[in-house]
Order: sequence, then structure tokens, then C-alpha cells
Amino acid sequence: MATNRRIVLASRPKGAASTSNFRLEEVPLPALHPGQLLVRNHWLSLDPYMRGRMNEGRSYAVAQALDDVMVGDTAGEVIESRHPRFTAGDQVVARLGWQEYGVSDGDGVFKVDTRQVPLSAYLGAVGMPGVTAWYGLNRIIEPKHGETVVVSAASGAVGSVVGQLAKIGGCRAIGIAGGTEKCNYVTQELKFDGCIDYKSEDVGKRLKELAPDGVDGYFENVGGAIMDAVLPRMNAFGRIALCGLIAGYDGAPIPIGNPSWFLISRLTLKGFIISEHMEIWREALKELGAHVAAGRIRYRETIANGIENAPQAFLGMLKGANFGKQLVRLA
Amino acid sequence: MATNRRIVLASRPKGAASTSNFRLEEVPLPALHPGQLLVRNHWLSLDPYMRGRMNEGRSYAVAQALDDVMVGDTAGEVIESRHPRFTAGDQVVARLGWQEYGVSDGDGVFKVDTRQVPLSAYLGAVGMPGVTAWYGLNRIIEPKHGETVVVSAASGAVGSVVGQLAKIGGCRAIGIAGGTEKCNYVTQELKFDGCIDYKSEDVGKRLKELAPDGVDGYFENVGGAIMDAVLPRMNAFGRIALCGLIAGYDGAPIPIGNPSWFLISRLTLKGFIISEHMEIWREALKELGAHVAAGRIRYRETIANGIENAPQAFLGMLKGANFGKQLVRLA
Repeated sequence: MATNRRIVLASRPKGAASTSNFRLEEVPLPALHPGQLLVRNHWLSLDPYMRGRMNEGRSYAVAQALDDVMVGDTAGEVIESRHPRFTAGDQVVARLGWQEYGVSDGDGVFKVDTRQVPLSAYLGAVGMPGVTAWYGLNRIIEPKHGETVVVSAASGAVGSVVGQLAKIGGCRAIGIAGGTEKCNYVTQELKFDGCIDYKSEDVGKRLKELAPDGVDGYFENVGGAIMDAVLPRMNAFGRIALCGLIAGYDGAPIPIGNPSWFLISRLTLKGFIISEHMEIWREALKELGAHVAAGRIRYRETIANGIENAPQAFLGMLKGANFGKQLVRLA
Repeated sequence: MATNRRIVLASRPKGAASTSNFRLEEVPLPALHPGQLLVRNHWLSLDPYMRGRMNEGRSYAVAQALDDVMVGDTAGEVIESRHPRFTAGDQVVARLGWQEYGVSDGDGVFKVDTRQVPLSAYLGAVGMPGVTAWYGLNRIIEPKHGETVVVSAASGAVGSVVGQLAKIGGCRAIGIAGGTEKCNYVTQELKFDGCIDYKSEDVGKRLKELAPDGVDGYFENVGGAIMDAVLPRMNAFGRIALCGLIAGYDGAPIPIGNPSWFLISRLTLKGFIISEHMEIWREALKELGAHVAAGRIRYRETIANGIENAPQAFLGMLKGANFGKQLVRLA
């Protein structure tokens, strides 16, 4: 049996995370017990929520244990099975973490159909990020036809789906992203109605031009100065789906400068964690899969090669160095 | 006919409001046309929202016009009527503003029954402040039996009703108020389970003691440092009814220091303006009237005497100098 290479959490970050917080290990793979299956991971998904897990203390999930394999979603192929539901050759998504192989009892392992949707997409537009976009848009923002929806981190795995779903629903979609290249992608390939480059443009001023009738729904992935710029443009009874605050993940919390907008414009802000809404996954995945297969939802991936490069890719993603969904190719 | 004394907005505040922003005028009362009635105002209600109206620019309501009578709710007696629905002697609540007399065509004038509820209470616990409390608690916080509800400005016209309604509904009610006297009133007379004196106590630390199981609902009247102290104590899926941010009304906006709590604890924050929810007034007023008549809801009033003293009383209220509902006695 091949050995397994994996990344464990070596230490907790003080301030910004760094590669020294991770450790690469090489370990033998155990023999399978009855009821178990062995998966060769082909893809590892890197996601901003992982940064929160590296901290000790209160967050919405239990902290990642030190010296344990980093948590993470994976997609791969069953190479050996002593489990009645799986056979070698099955394509599956699972939550096997930052490693090349994973042993599972089948809990949380799902077979996927890769005839019309590529395997890696089940970690992106047809996976957790896509479902996150679907839930925040349809269950919190609930936009009506003709309304304006704004999304930050618009070229990312979640944001790109938010805007495309909004367009499919007959809304005006405005993105916020970092850099000309990402903004061009958002408007030209994803067909948003506009995109603001927060690195070179005044977000509030530009939003006034791009959303002259105001903003009805805001899907927030970033926080900080970007949120402060969007709030004054929100219409009465606007809805804000709070999915992430990546601007503050790596250091001191970043305030909301003028909360009186929540009162003045009678806004609703709702934080959510997609894993707590399992009841909508089936419906959302079915819809997202159909959109991707039909080319109505497009996406982009940034791919790092080899488990040994996962930490660097992860740290880059936290700074916006990725373009679209950040993956690690493991096989 | 007597002359009418009234307060008009003389100028808009730059920073803190002052008495120089108001002007007392004495004007003759006009003769009544058919369809009109004349009310002798006995009580004027002073409310924090009025501070927002004094500003120019975007708020949730049209700004108060310069040189016009200050807007405000009133309670009084019809002294002359050429309107088919009203006769002299009717006790009414209306929105006749900061003046001793008001002429109306009957729109927005409501007869009230003062046999079991005193006239002034229709401006407080059985009026707009009471309905505000009722809506924020029952329609936004929606507390379940046994949950913990926290309210800031707890001895005030709105806050006192929030906590008492929460207690009637089987919740634990914790107030936040300024000073020992107000806190004693909140626990001893209003029968809240606890009250934190923000002027002398560490709100976060004390809240941990008084709400050991965390906070499920927060009714926010104040904002600023108090909100920052409550957020970390909120339980998962907590609800925040944002009714006022009086801490920031008079100057620069006060930030929310660490908005990541909205995400970590999956909170919902909802700003509201009670005048936009007329559909619940009848139900709310009926319930509030029954509670007040039966002594289940108690309240306190701070009374200024004479229209000429309204500006000073209003400015004091913005600083928390009042105790309970701030009124001006006009007759």
C-alpha cells in the first residue's frame, strides 16, 4: 500500500497565518476494516472558513485540533471498498481533509455524476460554495425580478454564483472584486451588469453610478471598508446576507463604521453558515448542476499542484491571490 | 379666542442640538371651517426620533421643515368641533405637534377611553412607544418561553414595556440603564430579572453573570459601547431588534466594533420604524391597554410644565435625564 501524505495543523496563528502553522507528514495507510472504503483524493477544496478553524476559542465550529489533519472538502475516486454502498471506481465527494488518501465509513461520502459536470465542480459551483450562494440569495436576500443585488468577492467561488443566479432570476447584478482582470472576468464572462475594482475605484461613488436605483440585496463576503461603502447605497428594507468577513479574518476585527444605516434604511442583516441548512442542499445542488451543465453558470478555478503546496495556496487565497475557486490537485 | 403658543424649528443643529435651534411663537387661533375640530392639547410626547427630524438629509422620514411647528404626538380634549365624528369633550390622541392648540380635519385623530387608562398613557405604554416595544419583541425577536431578552434604555418608555412584555411571555428579562435609581426601578417596580448600570458597571461582565445561558433577543435603543458589550453574549441564532441608536444621534456615528459576532453567532439584526407597521397597531394597543388597566404593565413619566420648557426637556431626554416617558404638560 502507498503511503499517504497529509497536512496537519502544527500551531495556531498569532495574527496572520503563515506556512509555519502547517506541517507535512508522510504516514502508512491502514488496512481497511469491514464497512470502510478508501478514497484517492483528486481534489482538495481550500475555503476561507478554514482560517477560523485554525484559531482557538469561540467560533461557529469546533476549532481544528492541533496535530490533526486539516479539515476540508475533497473529491476523488474510491480505490478499495469493504462498504456495501460503494465500489472501486466510484467518483465521490467527501470531507476527508488535506491529504492524498482518506479512509471513511461512508458517512458524508456522496457519489457524483461526472458525465456533464466535472468532478472538481462538485467542490465549487455545484458544491458547498454554490449552495452557500444559493441559500444566501434565495433564502435571505430573496430578490424580486428587477431588483439590484451586489456581491463582494464577485469573482470567487461563492460570489460568482450569487451574481449569475441573480441574473438568471431577472435581477441587476453588480460585483465588487480586486483588480481589472477580475472585474473584466465578472462583466465579460459572468455577464454581471457591472463590477467595481475596490483596489482602484471609490466603491461608494462607483456604486452610485452602477446602481442608480439603489441596492436591494447585498451578499457580503468581505466586510470592512467595502461594507461601509455599500451600506449608504442600500434601499429601504434592503437585505444583507452575511456569509463572510474575510477582511478581518487575519487580524483585528474591522468595525462597521456607521450602523445607523441599518435603522435609517430599515435593513435586515443575517449571518449564516451553510452547513446548518442541510434541508436545502438537494434542491440547490439539483438546480446548480443543471445550470452548470447547460453553461448558464460559469466558473473559474485556480489550481495548486500537490498537497505540499496547499498551505501556500491557502494563504494566497486569504489575500485574494486566487482567481475563482481555489483547488489543490492531488492526483 | 385664546392665542396659541407653539415651538418651531428655528435652525438645524450642527453637532449637538441646543435650545437655540428652537423658537417660541405666539399666534392667534384661526376660526374653524366646516369639517374641522379644535383640540386643546393637554400632553405633548417628546421622543428620540425627533432629533433625526431636525437634521437635513436622508433619514427614514422627511426632515422637519424650518419655521414649522415641531412634529409630535399629543393628547388632549376637543373644545370645538365642526366635524361630524367629534364633539366637544372628546378625549383624543393626535399628532398636533409642539403647541397648546391644534386644528385638524380629523385625520389621525383618535378618541380614547380614559376610564381605566389615563390620557397621558396613550402617549406612552398604550401609544407609540408601547406599540414599538410590542412590535420589536413579538415580530422581530419572537422570544420563546424561557429565553433571555435584553433591552437597553430599560427604564424608558419603550424599554420598560419590552421587558414587562417579555416577562409576561415567560422570558428572562435583563435591562441596561444609566444609574442606580433607574436600575432599582427596573428590577423592583418593573420586576425585570436584572438590570445593569452602564454608568458604573462593566456591561459585558455583568451580563455574563445575569444571563449565564446567553442572550437570545436584544432590543436595541442605544448602540455604541453598549451594543459592543452585548454582541459577544448573544446565543446562536439570536435576534436583534434595532429600534434606536440614541448614543450616536447627536454627533459622529458610533461604529459596531466587532461585526464578526453576526457571523460567528448567526445573528439577525433588523432595523424598524413603527409607523410602517400600522397593521399591528390595533392588536398591540388592545393588548397593551389591557395590561396597563390590570397593572401588569407599569410605567413612569417625567413631566415638564408648559410649552416653553419643551426644548430643554427634549435635550435632557437625549442625554438620559428623564426617567420613563418624557412628557410636557400643556394644560
